[in-house]
Order: sequence, then C-alpha cells, then structure tokens
Amino acid sequence: MTAIPHPLSDLSVDESNRARDVVLGLHPGTVIDFRAIYLLEPNKQDVLRFLELEHNGKVNRDTLRPPRLAQVKYDVIGGSEAAQYHESVVDVATSKRVKHTIVGPESHASLSIYEFERVLACVQKSPVFQEKIKSIELPEGFEVVLEPWPYGGPDEADGGTRFFQTLCFGRDMRSGNPDSNFYAYPLPFIPIVDARKMELVRIDQPATGGKGDALSGITNKKQVLDHCRSAEYVPELLPGGTRKDVKPLTVLQPEGPSFTVSDANLIEWQKWRFRVTFNPREGAVLHDIRYDGRDVLYRLSLSDMTVPYADPRAPFHRKQAFDFGDGGLGNCVNNLTLGCDCLGVIKYFDGILARPDGSAEVTKNVICLHEQDNGINWKHTNWRTGRAVVSRRRELVVQFIITLANYEYIFAFKFDQAAGITLEARATGIVSVVNIDEGKSAPWGNVVNPGTLAQNHQHIFCVRIDPAVDGHNNTLVQEQSMPVAMDPATNPNGNLYEVQSTAIKTSSGLDADPFNNRVFKVQNFAKRNPVSGKPVGYKITTPPTQLLLAAPNSIQSNRALFARHHLWITKHQDDELYAGGRYTLQSRHEIGGVADAAARKDNVENEDIVLWSVFGLTHNPRVEDWPVMPVETMQVHITPTDFFSGNPAIDVPPTTDSGSKLANGECCKPV
Amino acid sequence: MTAIPHPLSDLSVDESNRARDVVLGLHPGTVIDFRAIYLLEPNKQDVLRFLELEHNGKVNRDTLRPPRLAQVKYDVIGGSEAAQYHESVVDVATSKRVKHTIVGPESHASLSIYEFERVLACVQKSPVFQEKIKSIELPEGFEVVLEPWPYGGPDEADGGTRFFQTLCFGRDMRSGNPDSNFYAYPLPFIPIVDARKMELVRIDQPATGGKGDALSGITNKKQVLDHCRSAEYVPELLPGGTRKDVKPLTVLQPEGPSFTVSDANLIEWQKWRFRVTFNPREGAVLHDIRYDGRDVLYRLSLSDMTVPYADPRAPFHRKQAFDFGDGGLGNCVNNLTLGCDCLGVIKYFDGILARPDGSAEVTKNVICLHEQDNGINWKHTNWRTGRAVVSRRRELVVQFIITLANYEYIFAFKFDQAAGITLEARATGIVSVVNIDEGKSAPWGNVVNPGTLAQNHQHIFCVRIDPAVDGHNNTLVQEQSMPVAMDPATNPNGNLYEVQSTAIKTSSGLDADPFNNRVFKVQNFAKRNPVSGKPVGYKITTPPTQLLLAAPNSIQSNRALFARHHLWITKHQDDELYAGGRYTLQSRHEIGGVADAAARKDNVENEDIVLWSVFGLTHNPRVEDWPVMPVETMQVHITPTDFFSGNPAIDVPPTTDSGSKLANGECCKPV
Repeated sequence: MTAIPHPLSDLSVDESNRARDVVLGLHPGTVIDFRAIYLLEPNKQDVLRFLELEHNGKVNRDTLRPPRLAQVKYDVIGGSEAAQYHESVVDVATSKRVKHTIVGPESHASLSIYEFERVLACVQKSPVFQEKIKSIELPEGFEVVLEPWPYGGPDEADGGTRFFQTLCFGRDMRSGNPDSNFYAYPLPFIPIVDARKMELVRIDQPATGGKGDALSGITNKKQVLDHCRSAEYVPELLPGGTRKDVKPLTVLQPEGPSFTVSDANLIEWQKWRFRVTFNPREGAVLHDIRYDGRDVLYRLSLSDMTVPYADPRAPFHRKQAFDFGDGGLGNCVNNLTLGCDCLGVIKYFDGILARPDGSAEVTKNVICLHEQDNGINWKHTNWRTGRAVVSRRRELVVQFIITLANYEYIFAFKFDQAAGITLEARATGIVSVVNIDEGKSAPWGNVVNPGTLAQNHQHIFCVRIDPAVDGHNNTLVQEQSMPVAMDPATNPNGNLYEVQSTAIKTSSGLDADPFNNRVFKVQNFAKRNPVSGKPVGYKITTPPTQLLLAAPNSIQSNRALFARHHLWITKHQDDELYAGGRYTLQSRHEIGGVADAAARKDNVENEDIVLWSVFGLTHNPRVEDWPVMPVETMQVHITPTDFFSGNPAIDVPPTTDSGSKLANGECCKPV
Repeated sequence: MTAIPHPLSDLSVDESNRARDVVLGLHPGTVIDFRAIYLLEPNKQDVLRFLELEHNGKVNRDTLRPPRLAQVKYDVIGGSEAAQYHESVVDVATSKRVKHTIVGPESHASLSIYEFERVLACVQKSPVFQEKIKSIELPEGFEVVLEPWPYGGPDEADGGTRFFQTLCFGRDMRSGNPDSNFYAYPLPFIPIVDARKMELVRIDQPATGGKGDALSGITNKKQVLDHCRSAEYVPELLPGGTRKDVKPLTVLQPEGPSFTVSDANLIEWQKWRFRVTFNPREGAVLHDIRYDGRDVLYRLSLSDMTVPYADPRAPFHRKQAFDFGDGGLGNCVNNLTLGCDCLGVIKYFDGILARPDGSAEVTKNVICLHEQDNGINWKHTNWRTGRAVVSRRRELVVQFIITLANYEYIFAFKFDQAAGITLEARATGIVSVVNIDEGKSAPWGNVVNPGTLAQNHQHIFCVRIDPAVDGHNNTLVQEQSMPVAMDPATNPNGNLYEVQSTAIKTSSGLDADPFNNRVFKVQNFAKRNPVSGKPVGYKITTPPTQLLLAAPNSIQSNRALFARHHLWITKHQDDELYAGGRYTLQSRHEIGGVADAAARKDNVENEDIVLWSVFGLTHNPRVEDWPVMPVETMQVHITPTDFFSGNPAIDVPPTTDSGSKLANGECCKPV
C-alpha cells in the first residue's frame, strides 16, 4: 500500500523530479530557473469520493484515485521577457503536462532565495552603489550588509518591471562574530534592482528626519551611523551575559507520546484524526480533520498575511510584505531544532522543496508535533462531600516557524481533548527599523535604539477554514446577544436578553462585533443535536482586532482587500486558497483573492462553504520590542457548539501527576 | 525580625484570636456569630513610608510601623434585629477597638457557610416543604438535595428582610455514590427562607415550560423528574469509563524551582519581587510588585464579579450572584491538592479564616505557586549564518480556585520574564440548570440534558489594578491608531496612520474600542524612557467583551453599575477595594462601588490612581458545557511599554532542554 501515495500526500522526491524532467523536456534549448514544484491538490469531489471509502475501511490497491498532479513554477530565461514566467501542471504518473500557463507581466512570480542571492550580488558589484558607500564614513571595523525586500506596491509608472528593494545596514565586525546585530545600524540607502535585467536602476535615499521635518530629503551626513549604538541578542555578545537563575524545567513522557503517526502523515490522537502536509506557499496544512469518526474540517491552513508600514515618507509605503504570497513561505521555513523549539517528545516532519535546477530537496524538520499540558481543563468540587474531580488539558501541537529577513512567525495548530482546535500565531524577531537623526523622534514610529526608528505597522493574517461539520453542506450562522427592553409581558424584570441568529445566505465579508457578543457558527442544518435539538455546529472565535488602516484608495489597501473584513464566507472552488490572490508580489490590486470570490454572490446556505478568518496586530513598537521582541500572541478558536451530546473531555481521566513535588522537597502524594 | 509582622501580612492566628477576644469582651451577655476576621490594610501613605525604608534595606526592629488592625464582622444575636450586624476594627497590639459600626438593615452582611447550614436545616425540617416534596413522585431511590443561593436583588416589597433561596434537586442514590450528579435532576421548587427568623416564608414554583409558554405557571405534574437522565462526571460513574490513551506527561525541575519565598510571603523570581496575602473577600492579593528594583504595581486583586441570569421568568431574575461580595470568597476557596491542580514543583500558601465562634482556623493550601513553560518567548534566525537564538517563556503562576455551589473559577496571576503580568480567569464547573418539560426548548437557554435547561447568563469580572509605575503619581493615557486621509503633503501614499494619545483627567468609566486599537497606558510623566524619550509606562490590555445586558433600570443592572464600562479610573482612597460596593448581598443598587468613586470627578492626572478593568463572558451554554464545562479562559495583560531600555527577557539564556527526545526514541541532541 505504501507504494501508492495518498491523494493528499505531498509529492515524493521521485514525483517532484519526474515533474521537473517533463518540464525540462518541453522547453528544450533554454535555461530554466525553477521557483517551486509541489502537489496540486486533487479536486475536492475526487478527494471526497476517496475519503468516503477510506473512512469506511474500503480503500485497497485497486481503488480509483485522482491523478497525481505537480504544479511547476519556473522562469524560462531568454526569449520574450514578457513570457518569462511559466506555470505547468504535470501528471506525474503519465509524465504528461496537462496545463501550461505563461503568466503575463501584470503578475509576478513569488521570489526565490536564488533570485535574492542574485539581487544581492548585483547591488554589491554595482559601481554606483560602491560609490554611494564611499560617500559616507562607516565607523571603524564596520561592513555593509544588504537585505533584499519585495518592492511592495509599485507606482503606475513602474509598469510591469520586476523590482527588488535592498535595505542596507552596517555591521560591526570588530567582535568577529557574524551574528552581531546589524539591524542596530540602518543606512539610509535603498538600492532598487531590476530583477529581469539584474541591474541596479537607482538608489532611493529615504529621509532620516523626524517630527516636523520634510517627508523627503536626503541625508548628506557622512557619519550616518555614529549616533547608533550596538544592540546584541546572541548570548555571547550580551554586555552583561545571560541571567543565571533560571533553573531547568523539563517535560518527561516516560511512556512516550499519546499520538501515533502512520502512512501519509496520518496523525491520530485522543479521538482526533487528520493528515498534515507541507507546501512552500502555506506551510503546514491540515486535511480531513475528524473527531471520533465524524467530519469536522476538510482543510485548515494559513492562507495569507500582509504587513503594511505606516511611515508616510517615500519609499516606505513600499514596505508592505505578503509573507506567504511574496516570499514563498517554503523559502523561509525554520529547521526546527530538538529541545530548543519544543519540550517533551517530539516528532518532526520534513518538507520537500525544489532547488533552482528543479531537483527535489528534503528540508529537514519543517514541522514539529508534540503534546503539551495547558493547565486545568475542567474541575468540580462537591462542597458537600469535599470530592474534587479535576482533569488537565492536554494539547497536541502542530507547529512551524518562518523567518522573513528580520522577523519571525510561529504558527501552531493546537488540538484539545474537548474537541476544540486553536490556531495560534506568535510574532517575534526583530522589528524593521530605519535610520533617524540623533535626538529626533517621529509620530510614525518609536526610537527603540539610538539612531534607530522602528516604524509603526500592522500584521494582518488570514486563516482559511474549509469546514465539514458532519458533512460538506454547511451554513454560517451569525449569532448575537442583544438587550431587550423591560416589558411587563415579556421581560418584566429586565433581565432577559435575546440571542438572535441569522443564517448568511450569500458569499460576503462580515465583521466582528464583540459588544453584541457576535459569534460565528458553522452549522449543519440537516443534523440536529439529539439533546438540544439545535443544528450541530462548530463556532469560530477570532480576536476582534483592527482591520487595515491604510487609506481606502491607497495601493497598500487595494492590494490587501482581504484585510477589510473579519470573516469572509465563500462557496468552495478548487484551487481557491489564497486570500490575497495568487500573485501578491508587486501587485497593485488584489486579484483572484477572497474579495473576488465573495463578489460572486454565490449562495452559501447549505453549501460547500469556506470561511476566511482575518485578525491582526497594530504594532506600534515599544522599546521592549528591541532588539528581539517578546512574542505577541493571537489565537483563533474553533470549538464545538452542540456538536456533541456532552463535554467531549468528560472521559479524560482525572490527573494525578507522580512527578510533581512540594517546593520544600517533600515527596509527592498524588490523590 | 520574624516576631514583628510586616504591615501587609495577614493576621496571624494569635492576632485574629486577640481581635475576637476584644469583640467578645465588648458585647458581654450576648451571642455572637462571627462572619469574618481579617487584616484591615494600613493606610497607603503609612505603608509607602515603610516600603521606602524596606526597599532601601533600612527596616529594623525599631522602624515605626502602622498599627495592626483587624476588621471583625459579626452578628449580635438578640436585641434589635435592625442592629444585628456589626463591624468592628480592633488594634490587635493594644487590644482596643478603634471603630465600631452597626450596619443598618439596608445593607446585608455577606453570607457564611454556617448561615447556609442553618438555612438548609430550616428548609429540611419545614412541614410545608416536606408536604411539597410529598406532592410529587421522585423516582425510586432518589432523595432531595438543597442548594442555598443568595436571594439576588429583592423586590421593593421585600424590605430589608434577609432572605435566601434554595434550589432543589433530586439525587439518584441507587449507586450509593454521594457524588452522583444531582444537577441533572432539577426540581421546580425554590423555598425562600427568612434568615433572621430562620423560617421558611414561601416556596416559589418556577414555570417549567419553554418557547411560547406563559412566563409563570406552576407545574402540577407529579413525575417532574421522570424525563430527566443521569449525567455523571466522577470517573467511577461514567458509563464508558475513562479513556485509556492519555500517556503520562510530567514536569520535572531537578534543581528545584527558580523562585524563593521568604518572610511574610515575599516572593522573588526572575527580577520580580512581590508579596502575596489571602483574605476572605478577594482571595489572593499581590502587593508591592517590583521588577529589578523598580515599582510596577502597589496592589493587584480580583475586585468583584457578577453573574446575572437571563431567564425572564420570575423568580429567576433573582439568580444574580456576586461571587466575591455575596459569598465571602474565603468560604468557597479550594484546598489545592498536590499534583492535581498543578504540575512541577509547587509551593502552597495557607489562609487564616475565622470560625463562627471567631476562633482562627488555618485553611490549608488556598494558594499555589509554581513555574510553567509557555512556549517560545523570542526567537530570531540570522538567515545568512543559519544561527537561531531561541528563548522559552517561563512563567511564575500564583493561583487560587473557588467553588460556588455548582460552579468554579480558577484565577491565576502569571509573571513572565519579559516583565509582563497576565491575570487569567478560567470558568469551569457545572452550569446552573432548571427543570424544563419534556420535548420543549426555550430561547433563554439551552437544553443540555433531557429535562434540564441551562439558562443564558453572563460572567462579568472586575480586576483592581493599583499601579505604581516608577512611583505613585501616574496618569492613564488612552491611545488609538486612527486612519488618515490621503493628502499630497502629509500622507501622499495613503499608508500613514496616526497614533493619538489622550491623557484622562477626571475619574470616569471608559470603554474598549478594539477597531481603533484603543490601548490604555499607565504612564509616569515625570520619568522618560532614555531611548525613546516617551514617558515610562505599562499598558493594560483587556479582552473587549460585552458589558452587562440587563435593561438599564433593572435591578440586575442597578446593583452592578461597575459592569457598565470596560475600564474605570479613580483616585486612590484607602479601603476602596470592591467594584460592586462593600455590601452586594441582596443589594438593590451598587452603593460605594467604583461608579460612586468615579462620580467624585477627582483629578486623576499625575495622581495616585486606581484602574478597574472589567471583562466578561456572555455564556449561552452549549451541550458541550455539560455536565462539567471545559474551561473558558479570559486574560488581562499588564505589559511594559517604554518602561525598559530594551526587551527585559533578552538575557534569558537560550534553551537547551536535556529532557526532550524524539518520538522514535532517539536520544536528545540539544544544541
């Protein structure tokens, strides 16, 4: 059986290489740079047919399976520039190309690390840039560090040119430590590279003033870094060293973990069952999530995010990253290290990514899986008898971490024993900074280190939730708890409030309303809870956070339409996965994203629906966020609501932990 | 030194008993029922004088200390009923009474367990009640269980009479297990007891209908429980037993905890330093909270909470508990059990409570203290070198748990290494239920078990934060991030947003506004951050939740004015601690609570201010909340904002955990 891949399994090394060979064969005599090769997930209807057999134990060697398709993204170098970026879909079993698209210059392929390396080399060897660096005086022992960034939303005049901007910093090499923190020394130069021609087209010189200064203006100071100060984070460079009073705290699981992982990354734990895959656009993706033999979700993924910066001085409006769509998340994923990112017994999953030559490479440990304890899950004490029953909350965590130049995100899907799922995003890393003149401050940021302005920005995330609440025909119901006026007949004492439910009929963008306790429930109208008589459901609880602040007609806003509502509902379409659209790099408008999907005005009542949950963080940096910021944590909860006939965790045995002991060293006496 | 108590220390057994003796001596020839004896905290000015010496290491045996005062609350039985409830303040060093108040009938003393026991006995022996029970047919093997409750907000006609209402249930005794869950069998009787005369005055009979039925109406069915079904939670009574696949997960701290506890409950951990005390009104209270030698908070406590129910049918409008003010939280506190409520190395603190005869009793393990790991705290990977530096988030947790009849709350103060404090409330236990006719449902609740309606309700909490941000003259600043229109001069690209700050000048109630990213900062205008130049501060981040829903002129609303705003700011006054007022039991209006304090319209700029943070949960029960609900968790964050010159956790050593291992059993290889 293992020889036949599961329809949802990532491409194997062999499959990926076969897809590459097909593409190479179809473009003879040209140079091809591969950007990505990964599974094109089969049509949902085909997968569902397969899963129904699988759930009933009826899959065998002869079961009809959807074709194994690879999506191959690559540049054909030479020929018309306008026809350089191609996408092919290859059937890896038949070695046939089934689809071929030449993406026009109006859209850009996501960047690759290889491309970044070439951009860096281009800037470094540019005489114009070398001249510019010579025009200033770096402190003794400093060298220049270049940090390529997407170009953000281009001006109309930029046409379809593929640009990158390169932030510049000074690095103090006197310690000889290559991890000395260069972000503490921002240089006011931003070389712009034409990535097709691989040439430097100009060097932007952002202003370094503050409050009351002109928005534009070139710094002509020669000693632009002299007022900056070091800000180290690697322990060996900390002036005072590390604190000594953190005593070890270890998680032991003497009998091993409570989960099992079997063929095709099938994970089973505490009545949960799901598959995990990894792709370079979304990172870890969860599929076919079931609890105790019942469908809950078809697919769960991080769909998109955008990080717009609020410094009004050109060219900082082009600091707007789409960290999934622009970068190819797979390029930035961390190799997680044992005992360092997680505690306890850990299972790692590898990812398969394509090198520039198209050959598949196994990237180690891109996802980790472990259990953790999260305090008390339920407790009740009968005060009459003194009997306390307390059950702890064990969670299963699927985690991956990405580094985007200066910044990192830690994403975790957490499953609990009460049949809930929490998606957690932790933001950490080094805030993006620019040079500011000595003694100045600015309303659009905070001086977090001398000479270093951390600009205000937002992080707006979108989680894609493809529900399957006891089946695939679901309805989104918006519920609110509303005050009711006092009335002798219906509310004589004024204590009544009314729970109003509204089924959403048409695809659309909806908003949070916490002061009316607005709750979004995905219900299956065809299945009633045997106890309450209400439709079975799961609710989606998102932090009610600020939406995108950029002005409605700004480029920042136009390219992130998804960030204008808290919850979108659309009718499912195959391969409609990315809230910000398929091509975010250098976009001027969100095209083919969730706003377009919602605009179809599809019927979404009793349909195969998809929910897109948007939440974020308006991040006006604190000094405490420097040089590496403590995590800011956000969570989306997906929780059963009248899906079960009682607390699903009621059968979790009460905890008696034999490892615990009293602080005075007394031996433990578990109850 | 240990012989001289710290000014903030709880009363010792000796001190408490001395206070009792003084009171007994002043009321000769009468019977006295003691309700509570505990420390009356000294005036803040006196404490501050002492703390300044203490912080500078100048306290010795001769240091002038404020007097040790005991507040003694008691009933004088006999004599005028209107003058029955007394409060005395006794100086325990001089054995002199320094204050004596006879609380009039307009206010009620908080209840005591002793009083509850007498109420229960009164109902049980009442012939009227016995007759009532005989009028129905309990199932074979069932007995009646009585659950006393506060009477909520009384009607005007009730005058000052001290009432209790007693919910009634049937308990299936056939298993012989006294912890069989009687809440699954609600009886539609609510005996009302006059607690002064200790006599049953009537039996309310709530309606058992549902949607469309009259709001009032007596159930004349004899078999009121026949359609109810068992719903057990103690493991030995679960029909299917407990799940078997949860493998052990243990926290080991081989070198012990990182905290120390010394004289007068002084806790020191990771640059933090504070004292913890325990009193029967607020539970665990934290005092003199400092980080790295700097003041952060003077006092932190749970101030109040209210739980109003939304079933419009009389007498359910009187289901409104003030779990701190009504009950005397100390009566309900859990004795925490090792290895059961917490993992790791645990330090317990005892509380001292007064028995009905006034004698002091040591109540074991009312507060626990432990460390926990909460995932990654900060991480950065230098993609050029591949060097990842990751530091985990260790937290110190001060926790206590209360049981209020059917329900429990778990309160935790969590300190972290990035100089933040989180106050967490977890709601669990058994939701309050009433009888509902077979096959019916109701808009004001959910049928969570056959015959059992869980009524919609809210939990609204108030946390009292007495800040000391680098001193005691602080200002509350409300900050918002607001969109800015595109403008060629100031916002040419539309990406600017404006951070607006407003200092609050007058004591008042303020509201959350998450869509404008409203943030509340406590700043010290006299101290500037050396890096950013901004005032040093701490911000208070509360979940922006629904406020009280009850109609504005309802009794439920009038007695919980504190629940009408998200954040109150007042000027500090000694002994002003309770948001809902000093006397909540049977109140008809909130008197002397935070709304009255705010109404003084005190100047609060650059003053000794107090913040009162209000948040809650509108709880429309799910079937999954039954029979014991999985925790609903809410958190308030108190976080430095330009208080430090960088991330306070940057010196936490990177983690290498020697206990972790791979799921395949491979030995760990920490980096």
